[in-house]
Amino acid sequence: MNEAAQTLDGWYALHDFRTMDWTSWKQISAEERTAAVNEFLGFLEELNVAHEAKTGSHAFYTVIGQKADFMLMTLRETMDELQQIEAKFNKLTIAEYTVPSYSYVSVVELSNYLAGESNEDPYQNPHVRSRLYPELPRSQYVCFYPMDKRREGNDNWYMLSMEDRKSMMRSHGMIGRGYAGKVKQIISGSIGFDDFEWGVTLFSDDVLQFKKLIYEMRFDEVSARFGEFGSFFVGTLLDADKTTEFLTV
Amino acid sequence: MNEAAQTLDGWYALHDFRTMDWTSWKQISAEERTAAVNEFLGFLEELNVAHEAKTGSHAFYTVIGQKADFMLMTLRETMDELQQIEAKFNKLTIAEYTVPSYSYVSVVELSNYLAGESNEDPYQNPHVRSRLYPELPRSQYVCFYPMDKRREGNDNWYMLSMEDRKSMMRSHGMIGRGYAGKVKQIISGSIGFDDFEWGVTLFSDDVLQFKKLIYEMRFDEVSARFGEFGSFFVGTLLDADKTTEFLTV
Amino acid sequence: MNEAAQTLDGWYALHDFRTMDWTSWKQISAEERTAAVNEFLGFLEELNVAHEAKTGSHAFYTVIGQKADFMLMTLRETMDELQQIEAKFNKLTIAEYTVPSYSYVSVVELSNYLAGESNEDPYQNPHVRSRLYPELPRSQYVCFYPMDKRREGNDNWYMLSMEDRKSMMRSHGMIGRGYAGKVKQIISGSIGFDDFEWGVTLFSDDVLQFKKLIYEMRFDEVSARFGEFGSFFVGTLLDADKTTEFLTV
Amino acid sequence: MNEAAQTLDGWYALHDFRTMDWTSWKQISAEERTAAVNEFLGFLEELNVAHEAKTGSHAFYTVIGQKADFMLMTLRETMDELQQIEAKFNKLTIAEYTVPSYSYVSVVELSNYLAGESNEDPYQNPHVRSRLYPELPRSQYVCFYPMDKRREGNDNWYMLSMEDRKSMMRSHGMIGRGYAGKVKQIISGSIGFDDFEWGVTLFSDDVLQFKKLIYEMRFDEVSARFGEFGSFFVGTLLDADKTTEFLTV
Amino acid sequence: MNEAAQTLDGWYALHDFRTMDWTSWKQISAEERTAAVNEFLGFLEELNVAHEAKTGSHAFYTVIGQKADFMLMTLRETMDELQQIEAKFNKLTIAEYTVPSYSYVSVVELSNYLAGESNEDPYQNPHVRSRLYPELPRSQYVCFYPMDKRREGNDNWYMLSMEDRKSMMRSHGMIGRGYAGKVKQIISGSIGFDDFEWGVTLFSDDVLQFKKLIYEMRFDEVSARFGEFGSFFVGTLLDADKTTEFLTV
Repeated sequence: MNEAAQTLDGWYALHDFRTMDWTSWKQISAEERTAAVNEFLGFLEELNVAHEAKTGSHAFYTVIGQKADFMLMTLRETMDELQQIEAKFNKLTIAEYTVPSYSYVSVVELSNYLAGESNEDPYQNPHVRSRLYPELPRSQYVCFYPMDKRREGNDNWYMLSMEDRKSMMRSHGMIGRGYAGKVKQIISGSIGFDDFEWGVTLFSDDVLQFKKLIYEMRFDEVSARFGEFGSFFVGTLLDADKTTEFLTV
Repeated sequence: MNEAAQTLDGWYALHDFRTMDWTSWKQISAEERTAAVNEFLGFLEELNVAHEAKTGSHAFYTVIGQKADFMLMTLRETMDELQQIEAKFNKLTIAEYTVPSYSYVSVVELSNYLAGESNEDPYQNPHVRSRLYPELPRSQYVCFYPMDKRREGNDNWYMLSMEDRKSMMRSHGMIGRGYAGKVKQIISGSIGFDDFEWGVTLFSDDVLQFKKLIYEMRFDEVSARFGEFGSFFVGTLLDADKTTEFLTV
Repeated sequence: MNEAAQTLDGWYALHDFRTMDWTSWKQISAEERTAAVNEFLGFLEELNVAHEAKTGSHAFYTVIGQKADFMLMTLRETMDELQQIEAKFNKLTIAEYTVPSYSYVSVVELSNYLAGESNEDPYQNPHVRSRLYPELPRSQYVCFYPMDKRREGNDNWYMLSMEDRKSMMRSHGMIGRGYAGKVKQIISGSIGFDDFEWGVTLFSDDVLQFKKLIYEMRFDEVSARFGEFGSFFVGTLLDADKTTEFLTV
Repeated sequence: MNEAAQTLDGWYALHDFRTMDWTSWKQISAEERTAAVNEFLGFLEELNVAHEAKTGSHAFYTVIGQKADFMLMTLRETMDELQQIEAKFNKLTIAEYTVPSYSYVSVVELSNYLAGESNEDPYQNPHVRSRLYPELPRSQYVCFYPMDKRREGNDNWYMLSMEDRKSMMRSHGMIGRGYAGKVKQIISGSIGFDDFEWGVTLFSDDVLQFKKLIYEMRFDEVSARFGEFGSFFVGTLLDADKTTEFLTV
Repeated sequence: MNEAAQTLDGWYALHDFRTMDWTSWKQISAEERTAAVNEFLGFLEELNVAHEAKTGSHAFYTVIGQKADFMLMTLRETMDELQQIEAKFNKLTIAEYTVPSYSYVSVVELSNYLAGESNEDPYQNPHVRSRLYPELPRSQYVCFYPMDKRREGNDNWYMLSMEDRKSMMRSHGMIGRGYAGKVKQIISGSIGFDDFEWGVTLFSDDVLQFKKLIYEMRFDEVSARFGEFGSFFVGTLLDADKTTEFLTV
């Protein structure tokens, strides 16, 4: 059998995309809307407790275009907490005025393709920990997409030797490094959890860097021959004020 | 003609995924909700009679993300009982507040790829019986996905010789054995019953083991070259208390 | 040009799958439901007139799982009658409580792949007639699926010589014959009428025989290399009593 | 660069498929329904003015099965007129009781694959004009499907030489000629207008001829290797009386 | 690694397609409809401020067929403005009577495949600027479609050398030049922003030129072997008067 890649796994991740039902939202009174917005902001504040305690993190963004109106990405120590957060959101008043549009279940992951050799427990390594348990930034823009490694005819990633896969992933990583400081990337594994094999979440203060990074990578063999991509979502940061403004009709 | 695989077939299986319509659920009174939850718990208790009598089994779990809110998996001796259970659920009050999101019809199956030779009737073998008529565990997590064996160009499973298929399935089984005690796996055949060829249901108290098992298998030739996967669903156990809590708004 | 297959064509076929809207069905009074069920049973009785007169036939079954709640398959001498039956069903009260979920338009067909040579008019041959104008059985179970013959790269059915196609179809037919007495099979052609090239309807008193037959065939070259399958539907027989019971809430 | 095919282009075509919402249609009074039907028949009569003046044509048919309940195909001299007719239909009372189910935008086309050489302006040739500006027949049956020419691996239509394409299209045309008098065929090009490259509309008084023609063509290399097909729709003619009957509940 | 293409990036683009809910639109009073139309025309006038100031541009067209009823294409200097315009539209009264049907997020782009060598900053070149920051014309017709470059087997665009890609893109550009004065084309890149890699928007006063241009290009290797196309939308110009007329019921 072919040598399987090994992973380090961190926080569990739920990306939850929702579309506003603006028509019914407009039909309730301004007081009811204000109460619903305040309840929702309180919910986001509760999420922030884990963010502050570094037992989790979350990010809240609009989504541009009709695929969704906003996305809440949440990281937690257990899958159970994600289930509870999802259920809690569903029971909020605001949820009555949203329609589920897409979601993604995964776990933050580092593969051993790029790892050096070491006798240490990687889970104790501060650099590794900061990547497995990342504090999500408050960048101006987010980009999310799920992806697979192709398994078709002569382009079958899982039939390649570990050496070939490592070499290609290193070349891929080099491109990513060229965007250090411009784009923060979080890879989460979703085999067994959702329909693609990975989710990729990018953060940047310059939305054009998403396109530049992904386009440059597409010419790299690992993307060109082996990348299969799902839907792409792009959005802008929603803090409390912008959330209120966004929901004001 | 190529030698066909033989199967032993056990209980029939229905996986029934539902999404809550939280908005209309909130619109009825607390009394009506309590009555609906109690009626539903009574229905689950009735299912438990067969579970206790070992004439069937069932499992009830949340589903994380927007694909569904919960999944009821039921095993019974006949397809007719599954049809009756489905109809009975549809007539419950709780069903008025759910939307069907996915279902899967299959029959628990063992193939002869891994079977030794024997003169005994395998249906009398206690080990075989425990796998064909499995008592579903009450593990903390469940994972379900449907799958096909690929039939494309040079990657056509059904054109391989029985010997090649056996050899690959054995290698595959070896990986599964490495997860003994961590993950319980139930394979059910669905050719002629549903859109993929098999359903795979995994149970574990450590949700990460689903990802580790399936990712490791993906590097094995039988998955790498021949596995075609449908949607993946993952969820947490719902006992009576958690069901009540989940449905409290 | 490649030699085209010839067909004998019998009765036109409409498979009509519907999902019950149980919530609105429960909202009307028991009297209204009884009236609607009786009207529907009367409609089925009318269909039976053609069945008795052997100018058509029909079959009425549940569908297990969420793809549909029931399927009405109707055979008639003209496409126009199918259109009229469909319109008549749509105007019944029960139709107000159903949602269309799938349908299939085809014509019962025999190909010349398996035909012997003869100077007779095959349409006068009683055996041929019984297959082109079949009396649908009242077996306990039904299975329906649409299918294509593949046209991809080296696996292009329509580029094979007539001789190769005949030889493969004969091997295929041999498997079918092994299920004689267990499974009754009706093939209907749908090129120009619906999205796949054929519909396959199987009847049996043992639901497991559907799986055994189709799985065995899948290892045969004609299925392994050339079969492309749509959705599979499986269900149980609904006579008048079972229909009433099924619709009682 | 490969030599591109040239086309002659005639009337613009809109195929508009609608499904009746029978439940809400039944909820209005008989008077309202009669008024709506009469308004609709008046709209069809207006369409007929262009048909009579030979500045356009149209055809109105049921669709059998659940894909739609009826199809209105309209030919006009400009795309603008099609837009206006669509908008006018949408504003009719009957439209409130229909759900859009499919549509197709194209322009009647003749390619130069089958053209002889000539110094004349083909747009002045009466035979060519009768094909570019066709009077749609009032045949008993219609069949519509969209299609592409395949561009995959070795089966890439657009990489073939003009000579090879011409030769294959001639063989294809020969099959069509065998159905002269039985099936009338209208090809409309839709590159840049809709999701497939062509729409094919067939008219016949014998519905079985659709299947026979398309099945025979499928063994021809141009279909076998290069044809990619969308959905197939089949239906029966609706004149004023049949329309009224169809809409009577 | 393969040499990646470089791009110049201009205004961000949102194509927003909507379907009218004519039934509910008819249910409100003529006064309410007039107010809603006037509010909408005011919104379009506001968009025009940026158009006049050359800090953006927009185009408003019907869509023929059922894919949508109208399309609003907006170009702005930042992604944030597009998000705000989308939100503003969603809060208009007219939006309550529309259903989102498709959208596309991209950024106007020029690639270096066709660029000559220069020491100048291309962003200062007037010709380049007029293409990156285009004033959208008020042509009679629009055509929009998204597309990818294929990455399959031997037809993998991203594995080709820069030289081969350049040579093919030049041949492609030559065809486009043949339509100068007839068709205006705007290419916008969407890698990282939406599901395809590019959006193509064409404007013309002769709708047939869309078909002629795209059909001719399809025989060019870059389209024939490497073009993968999404849905095609075609429509007619809506100025204030035509908008009012279109929305009058």
